[in-house]
Amino acid sequence: MNHIQSAKNPKIKEWKKLLTKKERDQTGTFLVEGFHLVEEALAGDRIIEMIIIESKDMPPGWNYGDIPVTMVTDEIIGMLADTETPQGILAVCEQDHSSVDIEGRRYLLIDAVQDPGNLGTMIRTADAAGLDAVIVGEGSVDVYNPKVLRSAQGSHFHLPVIKGNLFDWVNRLKENHVPVYGTALEGASEYTGHGQLDSFALLVGNEGRGVNKELLTQTTANLYIPILGKSESLNVAVAAGILLYHFRK
Amino acid sequence: MNHIQSAKNPKIKEWKKLLTKKERDQTGTFLVEGFHLVEEALAGDRIIEMIIIESKDMPPGWNYGDIPVTMVTDEIIGMLADTETPQGILAVCEQDHSSVDIEGRRYLLIDAVQDPGNLGTMIRTADAAGLDAVIVGEGSVDVYNPKVLRSAQGSHFHLPVIKGNLFDWVNRLKENHVPVYGTALEGASEYTGHGQLDSFALLVGNEGRGVNKELLTQTTANLYIPILGKSESLNVAVAAGILLYHFRK
Repeated sequence: MNHIQSAKNPKIKEWKKLLTKKERDQTGTFLVEGFHLVEEALAGDRIIEMIIIESKDMPPGWNYGDIPVTMVTDEIIGMLADTETPQGILAVCEQDHSSVDIEGRRYLLIDAVQDPGNLGTMIRTADAAGLDAVIVGEGSVDVYNPKVLRSAQGSHFHLPVIKGNLFDWVNRLKENHVPVYGTALEGASEYTGHGQLDSFALLVGNEGRGVNKELLTQTTANLYIPILGKSESLNVAVAAGILLYHFRK
Repeated sequence: MNHIQSAKNPKIKEWKKLLTKKERDQTGTFLVEGFHLVEEALAGDRIIEMIIIESKDMPPGWNYGDIPVTMVTDEIIGMLADTETPQGILAVCEQDHSSVDIEGRRYLLIDAVQDPGNLGTMIRTADAAGLDAVIVGEGSVDVYNPKVLRSAQGSHFHLPVIKGNLFDWVNRLKENHVPVYGTALEGASEYTGHGQLDSFALLVGNEGRGVNKELLTQTTANLYIPILGKSESLNVAVAAGILLYHFRK
């Protein structure tokens, strides 16, 4: 086991850079923090190396084989963790580069969602609803942003979560007989017009603008959830949950 | 119109204290920030006084009658607003002290939810689903926390959002023939066993622990949402959305 005590060690600088999207994109890696997320990453076989605070031991049940582990100081953990009270363990993980074949039957497509909590919660919900993959279009917050990872609670390691061009995906899905349902307030029909669906892709969009209008012209159909009270709309992650569970029922 | 330029003015100190729960509780008031929330508060007849940045005018269409308005500096707005880029308008509002009669038919009961985004999103969803009131038990984040207000997007002014003792409420609701459905992972039945409900109270709980176990023994029935994939659970606000729209359909 390595041991680093100087915050100026080049390895620490390298890890710290992973807090930026640019560095994550360039290296194809990302950091996860905390026992739960590191355990999920380990189970998903996605860890390149682990970092643990010198005052703690690795949990006894963990089978991490020959994955390198580095012990560091409390100060260094504080530099690498995005949370206010870090748990003292991190892992450098490989990004998901699965080339998802359209053999699955259920997808969530996400267009330009900005809030990390919303994106992470939707990844978690897609996992809970047993979907085959989540496709995140350009203009969304980075799927490996620490807040997205925390909100998703490990679901990144349970199903493919992939960046992609949504126009291409909508076309590929339709060619493969997976109907694509957009969400829109205008020119859409009430979601309850559809019951359980064996195969579908749900397309949700930006918190303020909704789904890109051009993209909505490419879908199989567009749906809306009626507002029965006085609010103007639903939160996008709540709307995704309502629709995914409605289709799965 | 008053004009305050000194950040040391006692009025500014008084307003600034409303950023703490203690002061909000003592005064029975709270602050909202931004044009959308202030407009909703105005429509809801809940504003005591308004505060606007000296470089902006009140929006022309607003009918604020004899509500006092104070102009302040950019610096003062920054002291009072909880956001990084405040819009330059705030209002001091009255808290909701409605004594909700159990004449309504649909309620959301919230037990010890900690995350302000979750609480605010549930208030917004309860509004969207046309509920009659939201009852927030002890141990939850303050309903007038600025982040709760932002996530709820004005729904605080659309339906009663009340602090209350959940044991009392569960009993009162049952006595008035409103069935109370708790959410639980054990000793619960699948939610799809119930269809549309004309009258119900949904009880959701803490992000980690769920609903208080004793409270779950007082409900009419307890329900769960099946996890079809590998995640351990759903986000509480997503779960509330799925159930509320399932009952309303």
